[in-house]
Amino acid sequence: MTYRKEIDSIIDQLSFNEKFNVNIDDYDNILIEGMGGSGIAGFLFSEIYSKKPVIVLNTYTCPDFVSEKTLFIAISYSGNTEETITCANEARKKGAKILSITSGGKLSEISDQTVIIPAGYQPRSSLGFLLMPIINTISPDLRNQMDEIKNNIAEIKKKEDNLISISKRIFESGKVPYFISWNPTSSVAYRCKTQFNENSKMLANAGYLSEINHNELVPMGMNHEMDPFIYIAFKNSFSKRNEKRLEITKKLSSRDFTIIELKGKSIFSQIMYGVYFGDVLSYHVALLRKVEARDVSIIERLKLELSS
Amino acid sequence: MTYRKEIDSIIDQLSFNEKFNVNIDDYDNILIEGMGGSGIAGFLFSEIYSKKPVIVLNTYTCPDFVSEKTLFIAISYSGNTEETITCANEARKKGAKILSITSGGKLSEISDQTVIIPAGYQPRSSLGFLLMPIINTISPDLRNQMDEIKNNIAEIKKKEDNLISISKRIFESGKVPYFISWNPTSSVAYRCKTQFNENSKMLANAGYLSEINHNELVPMGMNHEMDPFIYIAFKNSFSKRNEKRLEITKKLSSRDFTIIELKGKSIFSQIMYGVYFGDVLSYHVALLRKVEARDVSIIERLKLELSS
Repeated sequence: MTYRKEIDSIIDQLSFNEKFNVNIDDYDNILIEGMGGSGIAGFLFSEIYSKKPVIVLNTYTCPDFVSEKTLFIAISYSGNTEETITCANEARKKGAKILSITSGGKLSEISDQTVIIPAGYQPRSSLGFLLMPIINTISPDLRNQMDEIKNNIAEIKKKEDNLISISKRIFESGKVPYFISWNPTSSVAYRCKTQFNENSKMLANAGYLSEINHNELVPMGMNHEMDPFIYIAFKNSFSKRNEKRLEITKKLSSRDFTIIELKGKSIFSQIMYGVYFGDVLSYHVALLRKVEARDVSIIERLKLELSS
Repeated sequence: MTYRKEIDSIIDQLSFNEKFNVNIDDYDNILIEGMGGSGIAGFLFSEIYSKKPVIVLNTYTCPDFVSEKTLFIAISYSGNTEETITCANEARKKGAKILSITSGGKLSEISDQTVIIPAGYQPRSSLGFLLMPIINTISPDLRNQMDEIKNNIAEIKKKEDNLISISKRIFESGKVPYFISWNPTSSVAYRCKTQFNENSKMLANAGYLSEINHNELVPMGMNHEMDPFIYIAFKNSFSKRNEKRLEITKKLSSRDFTIIELKGKSIFSQIMYGVYFGDVLSYHVALLRKVEARDVSIIERLKLELSS
């Protein structure tokens, strides 16, 4: 499978129908632990679902409150991520039920239940596999939105010229892309930042309205010549106040913002639209930069050094 | 009071002993809402205390799970922050107990209990006032650490030449400072980023280990000539793995890192050390840049535009 096909496969991955056998009513809170391309599924889910407290963690350590009333979901594509295993072990000692999503590795050995997902992908291009078991288990009603989501994403593919022109703008700017969004699609900006890191091999930044209006607006209102960033905003339709803030931020900062409008009726739908848009965008920038989008061997080198 | 004295007053603010009259055992979870210089107190607290789930919010909207079992703490120095008031109103409708920390404004009108803190400060230099009512109410045992914290901070003032030399390095680099730390002192990196925004009028970035090893390491391993950042790491003593990761990150990225060692026996203590260090550092960079550290009038302009 080409890497582009791997990226596109996220659309089909949304049909993945494995789930855990638990009753969510038995738990007071949900903790989702995972790093990088695995952990992003937790951030996404926390913006889609809030009927119970969802705490997203990407640390070695497990909070003190964890108990048998915590549903602990550990996500590690490889199944060998040391932070996730360390944290899950701690949670297990505190009595939490451990559910894991992985393609293999040691994680399943310390889990009460495991959903095994297909191997051979990059973790970041298996987001559908990583996310759907959580949705299928905790909020299966979201599956009703699947057709609409797939149709919206298909539109991006049909009009890829528009996306390619944005990728050229980013590439030709020679600047560091700064992705901005706001609740409940902040995870799209973060996802896009990490995809530019891994696929395009570029430094990138993510920021969230309205928080950045309370601090970052100050330098954005000055120092234009020193600004290393090119600004790209993912605009959702759920907060008129933040839409207005984006307009005022543009005006007061005199910066150009490329605005990508997130299509879809629901939060889940707009998030998946943004994720796919950003994934393909980072891929096109990789092509322009003539870098190998799939390759992240330096992360493997770090893991080797860590284990020595 | 000069602005420098205002910054230094954080040390005395830690003696602020107001608190709320609630029994924490009556609640399943704690939600702390606040923006910018007010909201940072929630981020700090969430790293110090985890016996109950602490959800830190900086959004207009309130999660669905909020109920009478949620202790909702709203922090707004002015008492008129629109995100905080909107979110607190939603939480109130859901039955949550609303506690507020403010120097005035409308927030107290929709609160069950309010701690009034001294007016006349910049929100960001009233962090002690904003934080201590939470600690005094939920985890008063932390007050035992106060003498040690104050002594450690006093050491920074005594050896300010060291700090000034770091401020010169940042200023002379002409680069964007990128502050890095890791759990449980990630809030120090974020605080420092926002203080550079507001005090030094500089763009700045914050990142957290080990998460950035899973994505940002890729571009850090390449493109040295395109890197707009100067890296400053706040090193805590609570994670040997992350200390090792910092060393490997330096090596694989061939970047210079300025390392600031956080002093103190406890998490609270190391966080306060880092906060004060970063606050004074941002102040010295403001002096070198000949900008008015206290002034953030552009944020007031934005608020005016928002209300029109």
